Amino acid sequence: MLGFTPALEKLVERFRLLPGVGYKSAVRMAFSVLQMSDEDARAFSEAIVGAKEKIGRCKICCDISETEVCAVCADPARDEKIICVVESPKDVLAIEKVNHFHGLYHVLWGLLDPMEGVGPDELCVKELLSRLGDGKVEEVIIATNPSIEGEATAMYLSRLLKPFNVKTTRLAYGLPAGGELEYADELTLFKALEGRREI
Amino acid sequence: MLGFTPALEKLVERFRLLPGVGYKSAVRMAFSVLQMSDEDARAFSEAIVGAKEKIGRCKICCDISETEVCAVCADPARDEKIICVVESPKDVLAIEKVNHFHGLYHVLWGLLDPMEGVGPDELCVKELLSRLGDGKVEEVIIATNPSIEGEATAMYLSRLLKPFNVKTTRLAYGLPAGGELEYADELTLFKALEGRREI
Repeated sequence: MLGFTPALEKLVERFRLLPGVGYKSAVRMAFSVLQMSDEDARAFSEAIVGAKEKIGRCKICCDISETEVCAVCADPARDEKIICVVESPKDVLAIEKVNHFHGLYHVLWGLLDPMEGVGPDELCVKELLSRLGDGKVEEVIIATNPSIEGEATAMYLSRLLKPFNVKTTRLAYGLPAGGELEYADELTLFKALEGRREI
Repeated sequence: MLGFTPALEKLVERFRLLPGVGYKSAVRMAFSVLQMSDEDARAFSEAIVGAKEKIGRCKICCDISETEVCAVCADPARDEKIICVVESPKDVLAIEKVNHFHGLYHVLWGLLDPMEGVGPDELCVKELLSRLGDGKVEEVIIATNPSIEGEATAMYLSRLLKPFNVKTTRLAYGLPAGGELEYADELTLFKALEGRREI
């Protein structure tokens, strides 16, 4: 039985390493590369290496950055008194899209997950603590996901931050906008009731 | 509002050019590249350029090949008297998987589609005709998809092959194995009735 040529096989295997890409999708992608122009294929190839080479981490907030200090940390208009702690750079983008938060960020690059061997040393936790030393920061918003790992990480951080005498907050739980009460799960409804506010 | 860094933006745009990849998937893929090891990213990048550089077309059947003549055309065990004409290299693999056809292939690299400006000159049609000149080929199976374009291409080719005095056949239409009669569409059922065979 005929298979792929070695170079094609290699490309299919590489595409399969991407998140959410199964065998059939990887084959389609590999064939689409074969049908690209030479320039497009080269540009694609260079974009991969280029992103790896150019993108590092901001030395302050650990977010991705092509400069030593990222655009947010370097912006004098941002409020230095509030730090929003998130799991990943994607979360920074999600919050920036809302256009409501004007403080700084801190990217943990993961969540505590003892089962997977991810402890505090695997995350950018000490970088966060080093930002609290000079007493300028007044509030740390822990904006990890409302999942088991996200909660555990939030609990861990809130305890760790106690000695620094900063206000530690957590994003509100409740009903998602546009959602329907009858389809909300029990934990969400419970949290929505518990967190009710006067109108 | 903060966006991606330029190198990341570029990578996201490249991933979006792949089939079936929307914006959110492209972002996930780009971030997964950032989290790859340097070697993996380099290997990925090289696999793209490598596939483009190494993979050409077999000078006989137009299928993808890393050598001048592909493995099937070079195999003396294959039956030179039958050529199976398909739309793309993926179809060759699909038929090879069945392990039942032992003839040669011919890849058209597309189907006739006048609306999209794809005429016979855009396909590997003249390469097919040049294989029929010496009278060795006895049968041409036209294995294009059972779609409008596939049918039109089959009709066109069958007329074109008339002067060569070869038997021209088409894959059978009918019920797919494991399918259910009540869910079969009308055209399929009509073709299944029309093509009924004595048992």
